[in-house]
Amino acid sequence: MARDFEVLSKQTPRIDALERVTGQARYTEDVYLPGMLFARVLRSPLPHARVKSIDTSAAEKLPGVMAILHSGNDTTIWAAGDAKGRRRLFADEVRFVGDSVAAVAAVDRHTAEEATQLIKVEYEELPYVVTVEEALEEDAPKLYPEGNIREGDPGISESGNIEEGLRQADFVYEQDFITQHHNNAQLERRVSLAQWDGDRLTVWASTQGIYNCRKDIASDLKLPLNKVRVICQYMGGGFGNKNQGYDFDLMAALLAKRTGRPVRLEFTRPEDFIAVHGRWPTRQHYRIGVKNDGTLTAIHLKAYSGIGAYARGSGGINGPQAYAVPNVRTEISRVYTNTSCGANYRAPAGPQGAFAIESAMDEIAARLKMDPVEFRNKNAVTDYWGKSPLSSNGLRECLRQGAEAIGWASKRQQYASQNGAIRRGVGMAVGIWSASAGPSSAVLKIFPDGSIKVYVGVTDVGTGAKTTMGLIAAEALGVPFDAVAVVSGDTDSTPYSVGESGSRTTGSTGLAFIEASKQVREQLLAQAAERLKVPRDSLNLAGGKIVSSDGKSWEIAEVTRRNVDAITAAVTTDPSFGGKARTDFAAHFAEVEVSRDTGKVRVVRYVAAHDSGTIINRLTAASQVKGGVSQGIGMALREELIWDRNTGIPVNNHYHGAKVLLHPEAPEVEVLFVDSGEAMGPFGAKSLGEIPIVAAPAAVANAIYHASEARIRQLPITPDKLLEAFRAPGA
Amino acid sequence: MARDFEVLSKQTPRIDALERVTGQARYTEDVYLPGMLFARVLRSPLPHARVKSIDTSAAEKLPGVMAILHSGNDTTIWAAGDAKGRRRLFADEVRFVGDSVAAVAAVDRHTAEEATQLIKVEYEELPYVVTVEEALEEDAPKLYPEGNIREGDPGISESGNIEEGLRQADFVYEQDFITQHHNNAQLERRVSLAQWDGDRLTVWASTQGIYNCRKDIASDLKLPLNKVRVICQYMGGGFGNKNQGYDFDLMAALLAKRTGRPVRLEFTRPEDFIAVHGRWPTRQHYRIGVKNDGTLTAIHLKAYSGIGAYARGSGGINGPQAYAVPNVRTEISRVYTNTSCGANYRAPAGPQGAFAIESAMDEIAARLKMDPVEFRNKNAVTDYWGKSPLSSNGLRECLRQGAEAIGWASKRQQYASQNGAIRRGVGMAVGIWSASAGPSSAVLKIFPDGSIKVYVGVTDVGTGAKTTMGLIAAEALGVPFDAVAVVSGDTDSTPYSVGESGSRTTGSTGLAFIEASKQVREQLLAQAAERLKVPRDSLNLAGGKIVSSDGKSWEIAEVTRRNVDAITAAVTTDPSFGGKARTDFAAHFAEVEVSRDTGKVRVVRYVAAHDSGTIINRLTAASQVKGGVSQGIGMALREELIWDRNTGIPVNNHYHGAKVLLHPEAPEVEVLFVDSGEAMGPFGAKSLGEIPIVAAPAAVANAIYHASEARIRQLPITPDKLLEAFRAPGA
Repeated sequence: MARDFEVLSKQTPRIDALERVTGQARYTEDVYLPGMLFARVLRSPLPHARVKSIDTSAAEKLPGVMAILHSGNDTTIWAAGDAKGRRRLFADEVRFVGDSVAAVAAVDRHTAEEATQLIKVEYEELPYVVTVEEALEEDAPKLYPEGNIREGDPGISESGNIEEGLRQADFVYEQDFITQHHNNAQLERRVSLAQWDGDRLTVWASTQGIYNCRKDIASDLKLPLNKVRVICQYMGGGFGNKNQGYDFDLMAALLAKRTGRPVRLEFTRPEDFIAVHGRWPTRQHYRIGVKNDGTLTAIHLKAYSGIGAYARGSGGINGPQAYAVPNVRTEISRVYTNTSCGANYRAPAGPQGAFAIESAMDEIAARLKMDPVEFRNKNAVTDYWGKSPLSSNGLRECLRQGAEAIGWASKRQQYASQNGAIRRGVGMAVGIWSASAGPSSAVLKIFPDGSIKVYVGVTDVGTGAKTTMGLIAAEALGVPFDAVAVVSGDTDSTPYSVGESGSRTTGSTGLAFIEASKQVREQLLAQAAERLKVPRDSLNLAGGKIVSSDGKSWEIAEVTRRNVDAITAAVTTDPSFGGKARTDFAAHFAEVEVSRDTGKVRVVRYVAAHDSGTIINRLTAASQVKGGVSQGIGMALREELIWDRNTGIPVNNHYHGAKVLLHPEAPEVEVLFVDSGEAMGPFGAKSLGEIPIVAAPAAVANAIYHASEARIRQLPITPDKLLEAFRAPGA
Repeated sequence: MARDFEVLSKQTPRIDALERVTGQARYTEDVYLPGMLFARVLRSPLPHARVKSIDTSAAEKLPGVMAILHSGNDTTIWAAGDAKGRRRLFADEVRFVGDSVAAVAAVDRHTAEEATQLIKVEYEELPYVVTVEEALEEDAPKLYPEGNIREGDPGISESGNIEEGLRQADFVYEQDFITQHHNNAQLERRVSLAQWDGDRLTVWASTQGIYNCRKDIASDLKLPLNKVRVICQYMGGGFGNKNQGYDFDLMAALLAKRTGRPVRLEFTRPEDFIAVHGRWPTRQHYRIGVKNDGTLTAIHLKAYSGIGAYARGSGGINGPQAYAVPNVRTEISRVYTNTSCGANYRAPAGPQGAFAIESAMDEIAARLKMDPVEFRNKNAVTDYWGKSPLSSNGLRECLRQGAEAIGWASKRQQYASQNGAIRRGVGMAVGIWSASAGPSSAVLKIFPDGSIKVYVGVTDVGTGAKTTMGLIAAEALGVPFDAVAVVSGDTDSTPYSVGESGSRTTGSTGLAFIEASKQVREQLLAQAAERLKVPRDSLNLAGGKIVSSDGKSWEIAEVTRRNVDAITAAVTTDPSFGGKARTDFAAHFAEVEVSRDTGKVRVVRYVAAHDSGTIINRLTAASQVKGGVSQGIGMALREELIWDRNTGIPVNNHYHGAKVLLHPEAPEVEVLFVDSGEAMGPFGAKSLGEIPIVAAPAAVANAIYHASEARIRQLPITPDKLLEAFRAPGA
C-alpha cells in the first residue's frame, strides 16, 4: 500500500544533527554546575560477603572530602524499578563484585577516588555461585532464603497440549542452546547530577525515560512528584539499561542533600559494565515435534535465564511466538548468581530466543531437506500473535525481498559444496517484535509569528525520536519540517511520555502528536476563517500555508500575528489499537566467510528486510537497523562479559574486552523496508527500535553452518568453538 | 466586605524563601556554562560624537580575545522595545557617555576588560546638551534632525475647557516643580548569557518578562519564536528597567554565534547605572483654578520630561487623574538630552507627577486654611478614572484609616508652632495607579500522587508572584499551599504571560489560574465520581481532600494513583474587567524631623494606607509597600543621577553615589490595607506593584513644609536646598 506523504518516509537528517556532530549537544556528562561536587562509588571486590564494619575516618580526613554514604549512615531503600528488586542502597550483604558499598562526594574526581580507597571495609566472605549451572546444583550456596530460582519455580505458559502435540509428530527434534551475558555497552557512561533548591530536587540523568526516572526517584526518596524534575537533553545510548531511576541517581541526590551542593556521580567505564546490567544469559532445551511434510506440531522450551544477583529483568525468552504451532509449552526459570544483573538489552527476550529457535528451525529444515526460507513460509505466523490478531504481517514479503536481495537461491546452491580453507555460506533467520503501547501526551504550539514548537516527553535515546515526532507533527499539520522546533527531555518543559523502551515511542507518542496537530490545525483554521473572512470549510493548511479552495494562500503569520499567546493543543492518548498486536517482522540474511584454519568468521554481506509499517524517516530507520545488526553480529561472534569462575571477578568489563564491533569490522547492511499495509499506527507506522538485533545472531550462526557444516549452539561463536567443531570426529 | 479564605490573605512566606536566603537561588549571574566566554562593552567617553574609526588590532592580539563587535563589523538594528527607539547596536554616532561602541568576548573577565581598553577609537566630538533647559534653548545643539523635542510637539490631552475652567475659579494657583533623574538602582546587575544549539538560541536573561524578552530578541535577530528560549529563574530587581530584550542580550547572542561558545555579558555597577535608564526627570508648570470653598475648577499642566538620548519611555506625568475636575489640560513635551535614557521606573509617570500635584494641593489647602485630608476628601475622584468607571474606590477609607493611625489631627495641631533647631511635621499625599491588563496563560497539573504543579509564565521580579500564583491556585482548587509547587521563568516550561510590569500580574495571570484551577478541579472530581462511585454533585475538594456531602473524605491520590499522566488544564484568559478601571488607591502619611541647623531630614514614622482590593499575601504585600516607600523617600530626599554639565559625564553612577536608603535609615512603615469591596479581580484583588512609591515623595515634602514652613519644589530635597530656604528673606 503506497502512500503519499509530504514530509514522512524520506531521508531526513536528525533535527539536532548539527549539534551532535559539532559537539554542541550537551549530554548529561557535559553539564557542570557552579560549586558542584564529584562523587565516586566504592564497590565490593567480593562476589558474596557480609559487610562487618566500615571505617571512613581516614577518608574523611582527606582534604576535599565532603560526605560519605554507606550502610552505617544511610538506610535508603531502592526499588530498582521493580518491587522484587527492592534493596538498600548500601546493604550489609553484597552479592556480586561491583555491588555498592559506599559513595563519596568530594571537591574533585581525584579526591573522591582516593577517598574510596581510604575507606576500610571488613568483610565476612560468603560462598557464592558464578554460573547458572553452579547455581542449580543441589548443594549450591544460596543467594536468598527462597533459593537460587526466583520465586522458587519456573514461569510456565502452555497452549494446546504439548505431549499430545509431540505424539502427533513424525519425529521430535531435541537440542540445547546456550547464550551469554551480553553487556549493552552503550557509549555514554552513567552520570547523574543532582541539585536541590530547598525541597525541590533536579536530577540531570542519562535516562531513556525522564518520567520513569522522576517517578522512581520520587518514590524511593519519598518526595511528591511535583518536587522532582528530571532532565536529559541528549542521551548517548542505553539500549534498555537506562530505563528507570537508578541507585546512582539516588546516591547523587542524597549526597547533594547532605552537602548542600550539586553532586555529580560518575561511573568509570569498568563500573559502567558491571554495576547496572547486561542481557541475561540463557540455557535453553528444545523439543520440537515435526511431521515429515515440514508441519510443526509442538514446541517445548525448558530454559534457565541467569538474572544475576538481583531481580531486575523478566528473564523471558521469545522463541516459539514466530511460529503458528497448536501446542506450545515454555518453562523458564530465572536463576540468581553472584554476578552483575541480567536484565534488559534491546529486544530483551529477543535475540537469545531467536538464536535457539531459528538455529533449531535451520536444523529441522536441513533434516527435512527443505529450503530454510520455504520452511519459514510454511510455518511462520500469519494472523495471530498469541491470542491477539495481528494488525498486519509483512513477514512473507520480507522473506521474499530479502532472499532476492542476497541472491539466496543461487548462493545456497553455489556454496553447497566447497573445498579450501576459506568457505562461504548464506544463512537466514526470522525476527519478530511486538511493540508495547501506553499513554502519551503531546503539546503543540503555533506562535504568533507562525513558527511551530513541538513538546515531546520522550528523550531521544539515539533513535531519532525528536526528529520522528517533529516529522509526524509536520505531516499531520501540513507544514514543512523546518517550520518545526522540538523541545524534549525535561519533565518541567514537556508533557508526559511513557519512556523510550519497548519500541513504543513512534506508535504511542506519535498518535498523540497526530491528535494534537489536528486540534491545533482546527484552531488555526477557525481563526483564519474569522480573520480572513473566508468560510472555514474552504480553508486548509498545506505546504506551510493556509490555502483556500479557490486557490488563494496566506502565510500562517498573517492570521496569527495579532495573537499574543501561542495557539496550543495539549493532548493525551492511550491507544488500544483495536486490541490488535502491532508486531514487527524481519527476515535477516547473512553471508559469511569462515576460515577452517583459524576459526575466524567474517560477515561479508548482510540483508535486513523489515516490516515496520510506514517508515517515518528512512534515514534514521536504516541507521537503527544497521546498529541492531552490528550488535547482533557482536553477540553472534564475540561479545560476552565473563566472570572468573574461581573468584567471581569480571575479567573483561571494559571496551577493549567487550569487543563491540568497530566501524571497519561491521559489514555493509542492505536495509529493505516492506510495506505491510498497516493501518493502526500513526500514518501506518508500527515500530522499529527493538527488532533489528533479534534475528542477527541466528542468521550468522545459520550462515556459518551453511559455510562450514559446523553447528555451534552456544554463543558467542568464537574461533575456539569452531576449531573444536572442525576437529570433531565426522567433521 | 470581609471574605473568608483558606490560604489567601494571610502572612505566607515566599515559596522560595529558603533558597533565597541560603544562597541556593540561582540568579542569572549564578549560571556558568562549560566553555563560556565573558564579554564586556566599550562605552563612549563622550556625550556626543561621531565614531570616525575603530582599530581593534591591538585588542585582537591579546591572548584570549575571541571576538569583537563594533560598528565596522556589525549592523544589527535594535528595536529597544519601542519602534521609535530603533537604532544600531553599535552606531556611528554616540549620543551619551556610556553609549555602546564595541563589545569584546574573551576567555575571562580581565582579558575582556583589558581588550576594551586596547581598542582605539577615533571620535569627532559633536556639541551636546545635558539638561532639559539646555536642550530647549533656541540655538541648542540638536540630537536628531527633528530637534530635541520628540515628535516635535508636546502630547496634549484636554477634557472640558481649561481656560473656561480657570475663569470660573476664585483664584488661580500657579507654580513650577522639578523632579530628578532617579535610577532604578536594582541590586542585580545586568547579565545576559547566550548559547546556541545549532540555530536555536537560549538566553539566560535578567528580565521582568521572559516572553517580552523572547519576542524582542527573536524580532531583532530575525529568528522565529520557536528557536528562541529565554530563562530567568530568579531575578534581583528591575523596577521597570528590565522589561524587554536589551542591547546586551543581542550582543551576547551575536558574540556567542560568532565564537561558537556560550557568552556571558556582564555590566559593571557603573555601567548598570547609565547604560539602560532611570526615571525621567520633569519640569512641571501648574495652573490650578480654585474656588474659595475649595472646589477645583481646572488643572493645567505644561511640562517637559527628559527622556535622554533615545526614546524609550512614555515620558508621561500622572497628576490630575486623582482629582475629579471638569476641566483638565496636560501638555507634555519629551525632550532629548545627551544623557542616559529616562524611562520606566516603578510607577513610571507616578511619583514625579504626584510630587507636583500633591505639593500643589498642599499649598492650595494651606492658602484656603483647609485641612489637607479634608481637601482631598472634597476633591478626589470618586467613580471615574478618566472616562472609565472605577471598579472600586477605597481612597476615602485610606484617608480615614491612615490619618487615624498617624494621629493626624492632634499632630497637625501639636506641630503647628515649634521653636528649636529640630522641628517635626506631618504631611500626607494621595497616590493612585491604574493596573494594566493583558492576556495571560496558566497551566496546572495534578500528578498521579496527588501533588500539584503550577506553571507560571511570569518571572518573580521580587514581588513574590510565584507565591501569589501558588496561593491563588491553592485557594481556587481547595488545597493547602504546601501541596503546590511552582515552575516559572522559562519560556520552554511555562505558558505565556504578559510580563511583570504595569501591576498586571496578580490581576491578569491570577485570573488565568483561577480558571485553570476550576478546570482541573472539575476533571479531578469527575474522575473521583467515577472511581469512587459517588455522584459528582456530592463531591467537593476542600482542605486538600476530596470530600462528599455525607462527610466522607479521600486523599486525592486515592483517585489519581492509577493515572499515568497528570490531570492538566491549560488556560488563556484576557480579562476586560467589564470595561472598568481597576485603580489602586493609597494615602501616605509621613512624620519627619527637620534640622534647621543642618537642613537634614529624618523620616521618623510612616503610615501607608492602601486599597488594592483583596490582599493575596499580606506578608509580601506589606514588603512591597515598604520597599516602595523606601524608594520614594530616597527620591524625596537624596537620590539623583547627576551629569557634569560641562562634560556630560555622570558623576555618581554607583551605589555609593546613588544614596539608596540603607536598612537602618528606612523608617518603620505601618502598612494598612483597606478592603474596598472590589469584585472584578481574582478573589477581589486589584494590584499593588507600582503604587507604593507614588505618594511618598509628596508626603515627605508636605511633612517637611509642615515642620519647617519651607516649601521645596525641586527634588531631591537635599540639605542645601532647605538651608537656602531657611535663609531666604521671610523664612
